[in-house]
Amino acid sequence: MHFEKTEYLQRMQKTQEAMAAKGMDVLLVSDPANICYLSGHDAWSFYVPQGLIITLEDKMPVFIGRYMDVYGGVIKSTWLDEQHVRAYSDTLVHNPEHHPMERFAEVIKELGARKKTIAVEMDNYWFTARGYECLKANLTDAEFMDGNLLINWIRIIKSDKEIEYQRKAGHLASLAIQAGIDAIEAGKRQCDVVAAICHAQIHGTEEFGGDYPSIVPLLPTGEMAGAPHLTWSDERYSDNTVVAIEIAGCYRRYHSPLARTVCIGNPDPKVKDVAEIAIEGLEAALGAVKPGVYLEEMELAFRNVLKKNRMQKESRIGYSIGLNYPPDWGEHTASIRCGDRTILKPNMTFHCIPGMYYGDFGVSISEAFRVTENGYETFAHYPRKLIIKQ
Amino acid sequence: MHFEKTEYLQRMQKTQEAMAAKGMDVLLVSDPANICYLSGHDAWSFYVPQGLIITLEDKMPVFIGRYMDVYGGVIKSTWLDEQHVRAYSDTLVHNPEHHPMERFAEVIKELGARKKTIAVEMDNYWFTARGYECLKANLTDAEFMDGNLLINWIRIIKSDKEIEYQRKAGHLASLAIQAGIDAIEAGKRQCDVVAAICHAQIHGTEEFGGDYPSIVPLLPTGEMAGAPHLTWSDERYSDNTVVAIEIAGCYRRYHSPLARTVCIGNPDPKVKDVAEIAIEGLEAALGAVKPGVYLEEMELAFRNVLKKNRMQKESRIGYSIGLNYPPDWGEHTASIRCGDRTILKPNMTFHCIPGMYYGDFGVSISEAFRVTENGYETFAHYPRKLIIKQ
Repeated sequence: MHFEKTEYLQRMQKTQEAMAAKGMDVLLVSDPANICYLSGHDAWSFYVPQGLIITLEDKMPVFIGRYMDVYGGVIKSTWLDEQHVRAYSDTLVHNPEHHPMERFAEVIKELGARKKTIAVEMDNYWFTARGYECLKANLTDAEFMDGNLLINWIRIIKSDKEIEYQRKAGHLASLAIQAGIDAIEAGKRQCDVVAAICHAQIHGTEEFGGDYPSIVPLLPTGEMAGAPHLTWSDERYSDNTVVAIEIAGCYRRYHSPLARTVCIGNPDPKVKDVAEIAIEGLEAALGAVKPGVYLEEMELAFRNVLKKNRMQKESRIGYSIGLNYPPDWGEHTASIRCGDRTILKPNMTFHCIPGMYYGDFGVSISEAFRVTENGYETFAHYPRKLIIKQ
Repeated sequence: MHFEKTEYLQRMQKTQEAMAAKGMDVLLVSDPANICYLSGHDAWSFYVPQGLIITLEDKMPVFIGRYMDVYGGVIKSTWLDEQHVRAYSDTLVHNPEHHPMERFAEVIKELGARKKTIAVEMDNYWFTARGYECLKANLTDAEFMDGNLLINWIRIIKSDKEIEYQRKAGHLASLAIQAGIDAIEAGKRQCDVVAAICHAQIHGTEEFGGDYPSIVPLLPTGEMAGAPHLTWSDERYSDNTVVAIEIAGCYRRYHSPLARTVCIGNPDPKVKDVAEIAIEGLEAALGAVKPGVYLEEMELAFRNVLKKNRMQKESRIGYSIGLNYPPDWGEHTASIRCGDRTILKPNMTFHCIPGMYYGDFGVSISEAFRVTENGYETFAHYPRKLIIKQ
C-alpha cells in the first residue's frame, strides 16, 4: 500500500461527510482515481466495469469487480478485507445480453440499500449510459442523484505524503524532458524522441522508478502545432522546426506535468518573442499564487501580460492535478480560467500551461506546482526558456 | 491519412447500410476507434467529448469536438472538409453548469434531425451517463436507440491494408517481448524491464516506428500472478520467479498483442507442466481456426486439452483485435468462449490468450492471428515456449 491505513480512513471520513451534506446514502465510485484514493486499488482493470460502494455507516468501502481482479489484486493489494469485496463472473464481460451493473445492483440490495438515495458519478468515463440504465432498471425503488466530482473536490488538497509523490514525479518529468531534448535533432524520427522520453519516465532514477503517465508524450510540431493532441509518427524532424513537448512524470499514479519548447536550428524572431511573452505570462500567473486568492487571479495576471503585448488566448491556462489514470492527469475540478472562484489553499496542486498555438508553430512552457503557505513551489526544476538545438 | 479515401468511403457505406437495416436515421459515434475508422482522426483528444454524426444521406461524417482539436487536427489530418467540422468552445470543458453535448444537440438540429431516430453508443467509455441525459434533454422530439458496437462489428473483418498494419504491429510485438526478456533477471527492477519494453515498442525498426499500445505492459509476477492487471513497481525481481509478460506492438493504432512467460532461475516442474499444457491448448485452439466454423470451437479445442489434464479455466481465452485506443485493444465484439457463435471469415483477427493463473505463479503464452482462406497466420513470430533465464 502506498499510504498508511489512517490516511485511507481520513479520506473515507471526508467522503462520508461530503455525502451526508449532500443527502446521499450511498455513493457508487467508478472513477479509477477515486477508487485508488479510497481503497488503494491500482491496476489496469478499469477497461471493464468496477467500483466502490460507499455507505454512511461503514468505514470500509465495498469493491465490486471482475473476479480475476478481485481475488487476485484487490484482496492482496488494498486495505479492504474479504468481506468487502464482491466479484462478477467473466461471462458478464462484453456480453450483449447482460451487464456487470446487474451485479452492482445485487450488491447494493445485499447492503440493504435498495430504497436509498444512491449517488453515481454521472460524467465519469467509466460510468456509461448503458451502465446507468441497467442500474436504474435493477434498482427501481432507489432514488438516483449525481455524485460526479464529489471525491475529486476532496482530492484537490494533498497530504504531505501525496506532495512527496508529486515532487518525485516532478523529478521524473525533468529527466524525461531532458531525454527528449537530448534526443531531438534534424533528421531524427519523432518516434525515437518519444522512445527516449518514455524510457526516462519509467526507468526513473537509481533511487526510484516511474509509473505510466495518464497521457502519452505530446509533441506538436511546426505547422501541426495548432493540433496539440496529435500524437507522434515516424517522420523525421526537419531543420528550423519548433517542437512543443508536453509530458509528465508519474510516481505511484501521482503526476507532475511539464512542457518545454525546442527550436531545431535558429528560431524565427517571432518564436523567440512569443516564448518570452509566454514565460513572462507564466511567471506573472505564478506570482499571483498564495493562499486565500481566487484561482482566476492567475489567469488575470497572465492575460494582462498578453494584453500588454496585444495578444489573446481563448482556452484555460491550467487545471488541478494529482492522482490519475488515462485518459487525463487533470482532476476535472478547478481550472485556471476567468470565472473560476476556487480559493487557493496550501497543498492544492496545479499545472499551469499557457500554450500559445499559431498556424506554423506553437510554444508551450509550463510548471506544475503546489500552493505553499505564502506562495508556490514548482515540482520540476528545469530552465524556463526556449531551448535551442543547433 | 493512413488509408485511401476510397477505403473510408467503403467503411461509411457499410455503416450506413447497417444503420438503415436497424432503423437508425442518425448515429452519434463516440468510440475514438470508430471515429478514426470512419474519419481518419487520430489524436489524444478523447479525454473531452468528441464525436461523429452520421446520417443516411451524407457520405461524409460531421466531426464535433473541442475547438483546438477541430481547427488544428481534424481539418489538416482527415478526409473531412471544412463544412463537416463543428467546434465547441473551451468554456464547455469541465464545466459543472454546461456540457459539450449541448453543442452536439445543436448540430443535430442544424442537420435537420431533431425529430429523427438517433442511435448512440450506449456502453462506450466516452459516452457518459451525463452526456446521454444532456443529449436527451436537448433533443426532446428525437427517438433514441442503442448503436453500441454497430461499427465494431463492421471492423471485425480487416482490409488487406489493415492486415499489413497488424503484421507490422506483430513485428513490433516480437521486438518488445525480446527486449523484455533480454532485460529481465534477478536483481533487476520491474520498472527497468518495462522501460526497455516501451522503448522497443515505440522505437520500432529502422524501417518503421511504433505507436503507443492501448494497454501498458503487464507483467504479473510470482504470487501476484493471479492479479493479471496489476502494473509494475520499482521492486527488484528475485531468483526463481515466474513472470508472465503481456504486451502489444501497435502500428498506426493497429494492434498485435503477445504474451510470453519467463522463468528467472530453474522452473518448478509444475510451472513447466502448466506451460506445456497451455501451449498444447493454444495450438489446439489455433488448429481449429478456418473460415466457416464457429469461434467457440477454438475454446472447445482448448478446453479438451485442459480436460485431458484435469484442469479448467473460467474466463474466455481471447477476443477480436485491431484498431484501438486506451483502455483496451480488444474490439468488444467476438470473444473466444463457449457460446460465441461468430462464424469465422478470412481477415478476422483475434488475440488467443489462454492465461493460466495460480496462487503463486501464472503462465501466459499467446498469439495474435488472422483467419486465412484455410487456417490462420500469426502476426508475431516468436518461439512458443516457456523462456528460462538462468
